[in-house]
Amino acid sequence: MAVIDVSTLEKLAKRALERAGVPPDHADTQLELLVEADLRGVPSHGLLRLERIVRRIGNGVTDPRASGRQDWRGAAFLAVDGETGLGPVVANAALETLMARAEDSGTAVAAITNSNHIGMLGWYAERVAARGFTVIALSTSEALVHPWGARRAMIGTNPVAIGIPTGGEPFMMDTATSVVSMGEIHDHAHRKAAIPTHWALDADGNPTTDAEAAKSGAIAPFGGAKGYALGLAFELMVSSLTGAAIGRQVHGTLDDTEICNKGDVFIVIKGPRRDLQAYLSEIRAMEPAAGFGGVMIPGERGRTCRAERLRDGVPLADEVWETVQRLAGVKAAA
Amino acid sequence: MAVIDVSTLEKLAKRALERAGVPPDHADTQLELLVEADLRGVPSHGLLRLERIVRRIGNGVTDPRASGRQDWRGAAFLAVDGETGLGPVVANAALETLMARAEDSGTAVAAITNSNHIGMLGWYAERVAARGFTVIALSTSEALVHPWGARRAMIGTNPVAIGIPTGGEPFMMDTATSVVSMGEIHDHAHRKAAIPTHWALDADGNPTTDAEAAKSGAIAPFGGAKGYALGLAFELMVSSLTGAAIGRQVHGTLDDTEICNKGDVFIVIKGPRRDLQAYLSEIRAMEPAAGFGGVMIPGERGRTCRAERLRDGVPLADEVWETVQRLAGVKAAA
Repeated sequence: MAVIDVSTLEKLAKRALERAGVPPDHADTQLELLVEADLRGVPSHGLLRLERIVRRIGNGVTDPRASGRQDWRGAAFLAVDGETGLGPVVANAALETLMARAEDSGTAVAAITNSNHIGMLGWYAERVAARGFTVIALSTSEALVHPWGARRAMIGTNPVAIGIPTGGEPFMMDTATSVVSMGEIHDHAHRKAAIPTHWALDADGNPTTDAEAAKSGAIAPFGGAKGYALGLAFELMVSSLTGAAIGRQVHGTLDDTEICNKGDVFIVIKGPRRDLQAYLSEIRAMEPAAGFGGVMIPGERGRTCRAERLRDGVPLADEVWETVQRLAGVKAAA
Repeated sequence: MAVIDVSTLEKLAKRALERAGVPPDHADTQLELLVEADLRGVPSHGLLRLERIVRRIGNGVTDPRASGRQDWRGAAFLAVDGETGLGPVVANAALETLMARAEDSGTAVAAITNSNHIGMLGWYAERVAARGFTVIALSTSEALVHPWGARRAMIGTNPVAIGIPTGGEPFMMDTATSVVSMGEIHDHAHRKAAIPTHWALDADGNPTTDAEAAKSGAIAPFGGAKGYALGLAFELMVSSLTGAAIGRQVHGTLDDTEICNKGDVFIVIKGPRRDLQAYLSEIRAMEPAAGFGGVMIPGERGRTCRAERLRDGVPLADEVWETVQRLAGVKAAA
């Protein structure tokens, strides 16, 4: 494990993206998203993803110059063709357009297709909420999750993030609708650690504690039938509103060679009408249950982690750190 | 347990509401919502609620003639003062206005306060989706759910329903963000049955299997920290957008005497762009996991139940059936 200063990471990530042909402002957006994930303790969405992004550009399935073609279908519904652009570049452009519109209309929705992986949804939720808007962010992905009671994957990990202005720091929650991420299962496999029996099925559809077997199987939805219903609803809603692929036909966030055909939906609502700080403080001050050190507000652990890592540096797996340097051209390939 | 023909239930419920001063068209809306819940196997939101509705009218905390004052704040954001009207009357009026607007604008949101309990959210989701719109429905309620890692209730059971046109029958999911409803805990207490240890805490904040003790405690969020984050996000979003009360200050859906100060939010989006039937059929046809008889689509078990009960009659608890008759004035009070 290497521990690297954040400004060094930003500089090298920028160099790597520019070497791949990404214009400087697009590189800034993409690298900020990746570095923020590592800062907040979500390495699965951090610089680990840099090599795939670079490879996809090299393979011609990502156009690093595109920022999406926006088309209003009605005063409050924005259809976006991402033109195979970088996910955060296309998403941020759409969000700027939505916020400008919602300032007047009160609400606006974007439905994005033909764009690349948009990474940690909480990054968008927090930024939009900090600008005074409530936001719901949805994105689909490759089928990795099994329907409740089924043996095979048929639904994406379909995360949802919600950002809300509070009068102080924005509220932000961000969660996949799977019980864990595939990244966490890969991490267990790497460490040869067992996984809990309710996390995943093997390729034959049977429960397994073998993380290696789970990699070719299916992850469980979180919260049983309820989480299944939510994850399926998001799959259907995003596909329906964007025209994106669905279920096992989704490609392009976990490979280097396929055009990415998932969809993203953002709902932006002008707000708030109410200060929420007193209520959040009341929750933070609650007496914790047995086995808990305190009562947490979603998103705040990530913020604490971020502050520490800005000060002390960002821990990166050795392979990731080697790769970042190699892509930036500051060290020979291993 | 009585089994009653649905047309008899509708006739008696209408008589009960009209005797309480509800205009005939408002009575039709309110009774359809209640009877649909009993038809779909959700008795906690069915005619069990009729007596509270009648009492609240008698106590002057519900105005059965009101349908809400609607005020556009921007072209796509409708603020609704429910004027203490019946929940489904105010909600349906708002949804008609939203659908008419979204037909042109693509999207419209309603934020409703000062309205009464709106019952089973899936009823609205299915109706709106059948009209060709995607819809997200949220409603807050009295604090019955504890934050993850806390000992006391601070969050409503905050249900979410999502309706999506599919090309065939609409997709509809509807779930509370609590692991079970308080109604289910009351039902266990009534039957003196134990509850699973992860369902609820007692009044001292300790896990309990005693349903009677759980009635004065707090219900767990579904899916642990993830369901907590969602339920809290809905609490904050609804309060923020509507100006409604929050947390332990919410009243009026479980009592007969307080003005109801929770909020409701509906997001309506014109759609769909895609037929979803093939994907849903593929899920239905999946091989079930061990211990499952089949793979279900959310909402479909309720639809099957509805078809059976339309044919065979609706089972009602004896007390509920007695009460419906008494309120309709067709039988002397017990």
